[in-house]
Amino acid sequence: MNKVYNTEILSVGTELLLGHITNTDARDISEMLSRIGVNVRYHTVVGDNPQRLHDCVEIAKARADVIITTGGLGPTCDDLTKQILAECFGLKLVENAAEKAGLYDYIHPDRAYTPNNFTQAMLPEGCTVFHNHWGTAPGCAFEAQGKIVVMMPGPPNECIPMFRQYGIPYLKKLSEEQIVSHSIRIFGIGESGVDDMFAEEMNAMANPSMAPYAKECDCLLQVTAKARSEAEAEAMMAPVIAHVKERLGEYVYGMDIECIEEAVLPLLKEKGMTFATAESCTGGDVARRFTEIPGASAAFAGGCVTYTNEVKARLLGIDPDLIEEKGAVSYEVAKEMAERVRTLTGADIGVGVTGLAGPDGDGVHEVGTVFVSMAVAGETFVRELHLGTKRTRSFIRRMAGNHIYDMMRRWLTGLTV
Amino acid sequence: MNKVYNTEILSVGTELLLGHITNTDARDISEMLSRIGVNVRYHTVVGDNPQRLHDCVEIAKARADVIITTGGLGPTCDDLTKQILAECFGLKLVENAAEKAGLYDYIHPDRAYTPNNFTQAMLPEGCTVFHNHWGTAPGCAFEAQGKIVVMMPGPPNECIPMFRQYGIPYLKKLSEEQIVSHSIRIFGIGESGVDDMFAEEMNAMANPSMAPYAKECDCLLQVTAKARSEAEAEAMMAPVIAHVKERLGEYVYGMDIECIEEAVLPLLKEKGMTFATAESCTGGDVARRFTEIPGASAAFAGGCVTYTNEVKARLLGIDPDLIEEKGAVSYEVAKEMAERVRTLTGADIGVGVTGLAGPDGDGVHEVGTVFVSMAVAGETFVRELHLGTKRTRSFIRRMAGNHIYDMMRRWLTGLTV
Repeated sequence: MNKVYNTEILSVGTELLLGHITNTDARDISEMLSRIGVNVRYHTVVGDNPQRLHDCVEIAKARADVIITTGGLGPTCDDLTKQILAECFGLKLVENAAEKAGLYDYIHPDRAYTPNNFTQAMLPEGCTVFHNHWGTAPGCAFEAQGKIVVMMPGPPNECIPMFRQYGIPYLKKLSEEQIVSHSIRIFGIGESGVDDMFAEEMNAMANPSMAPYAKECDCLLQVTAKARSEAEAEAMMAPVIAHVKERLGEYVYGMDIECIEEAVLPLLKEKGMTFATAESCTGGDVARRFTEIPGASAAFAGGCVTYTNEVKARLLGIDPDLIEEKGAVSYEVAKEMAERVRTLTGADIGVGVTGLAGPDGDGVHEVGTVFVSMAVAGETFVRELHLGTKRTRSFIRRMAGNHIYDMMRRWLTGLTV
Repeated sequence: MNKVYNTEILSVGTELLLGHITNTDARDISEMLSRIGVNVRYHTVVGDNPQRLHDCVEIAKARADVIITTGGLGPTCDDLTKQILAECFGLKLVENAAEKAGLYDYIHPDRAYTPNNFTQAMLPEGCTVFHNHWGTAPGCAFEAQGKIVVMMPGPPNECIPMFRQYGIPYLKKLSEEQIVSHSIRIFGIGESGVDDMFAEEMNAMANPSMAPYAKECDCLLQVTAKARSEAEAEAMMAPVIAHVKERLGEYVYGMDIECIEEAVLPLLKEKGMTFATAESCTGGDVARRFTEIPGASAAFAGGCVTYTNEVKARLLGIDPDLIEEKGAVSYEVAKEMAERVRTLTGADIGVGVTGLAGPDGDGVHEVGTVFVSMAVAGETFVRELHLGTKRTRSFIRRMAGNHIYDMMRRWLTGLTV
């Protein structure tokens, strides 16, 4: 019988209790653990206080088999986690030579370092060390007193990649089952629409199982199967996935990716095509999203951020009289923006976006009105969007960008744009 | 003597433990409480499981004076919070007639309702009811067994306004103190350097108190004071803040803001100046960051994302022979980018950035080499940065942008660039 491992995530940091930062570490670690069949039963947050931290560890020892800590591994006098965990489990902290050498290298010789930087190299005796490729403080894991302890740094951009790269493999061996999961990514229909389409089927399914999730500007269907091997789990899911993709049709933009632009990059690369961006209200975000993907330079030529009417004219060469007559937020200006940036940069595809992200309107259009455009050889497509008057700027900018990438992936795959 | 009220926030919901949603309720409630001098000592998250919820309430009773719950007040069979809290405190749940009538009205006659909808009107005998103007489930508060309990609905768009409108006034009477906090924002010196400079002073301070925090690419010193009034707290902090700002000098870029660009916007506005961006490796992020700030259009003219050498020539007019000879990642090209985007757009200031965000080098420079530039009338400044070969792309892009905004705020305030 498969032992059930109860897990507690213990996050250390007074800034969490003051509401200065959000505990995304607990959320992201929980999501990763749910995919490998490890049950998270508790999240606890405690401040940088030795006695309270000690008491929380004792509570965790009483109710959990696996304790994952985040935070408190840094160089300052507030960073107590290793000391307290070592105390609670009767372990000594010893200096790890490799980590100490690494810390010397990391802190360049021409930059001042302070002795407290090296406390980060002190680790529980006998632990497995997780080197920090994204910052300085190493994480670690050990087994003691019948418990498994994993310690992660606090900053999310260190904690999450470290847990993904080291924590998950370390813990995977705890489960005799393989849990495999695929996310079917969807744009153009919302979570409640998807839920409606598949509600009966989802209720009837036990293993594999399926659940819809909403993201900020798109959604997904998560299909999950448990079996004795990954291959078995994949075989169980394959017919379900095929069926779902067939029912959802064009709304599916990809599998196991995070965003539509991740689907667009390989499509452009396989055709040897590039695109350029002309952005107004999105302020550089459409370009930024794409260039964040490693390898984007193969497919992205460049672009313009034309925030003012004057700069639309100066940088893109759009006729100021047209802007005056039709307004910056218009079908005509969107069309011009896409076509001109395409010609100017020599890219195969030009995309444009002009609209009102809020909070101000322009006296003609309501907030949330956005025109997005895509120019290819011989044809220009324009979509007029009304994204809602009560939405945040951030939502409107992201949704407009999603529409642009959706137009591109549809055109590149021969679907109706 | 002012009693110290220890508070625990207990959030109920299995979806939190699966990492499907983020516990923003605990964060936002904590922030509101920190402003009224109520100390949050613990956050706990537990699933929709009666036994574990019961055990968590017992732990909270042992270590906290105030217990705030979020979630589990809805109509489904998973919603257990009132039942368990009532059990733990020896109270009966009784039907609240006003709330029940309200629920009838809310659920329109032409929509089906189920009996379980009305469980939301069952409340602990003698409690203070908080009507839910943003959803259906009422919150409540009661005092029993020497503890104060406040129960809030889970959905943030209901929980947060309800807590602000009802929870805070209910709890305010617990604290005779006001807590006020300011963050001194710092760039150019890291958290351990700041900690080193002020460690002795921080250890000696009780009220006001001070603590350093690291952000991804900058850091801050948080100064906090407790007093009987906000004015008194401010007066206590003023000399500390003045002293810290004097010691840190040019490294302080602002107070109570989130990023350097938030300091740059008002400086540009008061001088009636605009700037434009020419970005290579940052891919649009420098523009995006600034345009995210409401009111940015007053100071941002626009810019270019010139990802390829060809586009640097075509969009900005940079001599392709110069790029060929010196390389795209060079002092000379960075200088040209800033100067040309300034002239092209008519902005007062042009900024440029060209470098290697990784993972690939260019055979000449190592990853993390970035040239950032700023062109003003009559002068161009260029900084050569070496941001580390083992950093993430995201870090290198953000840090490069921070240097650009730092150059701008220094120039605009008459400091050495």
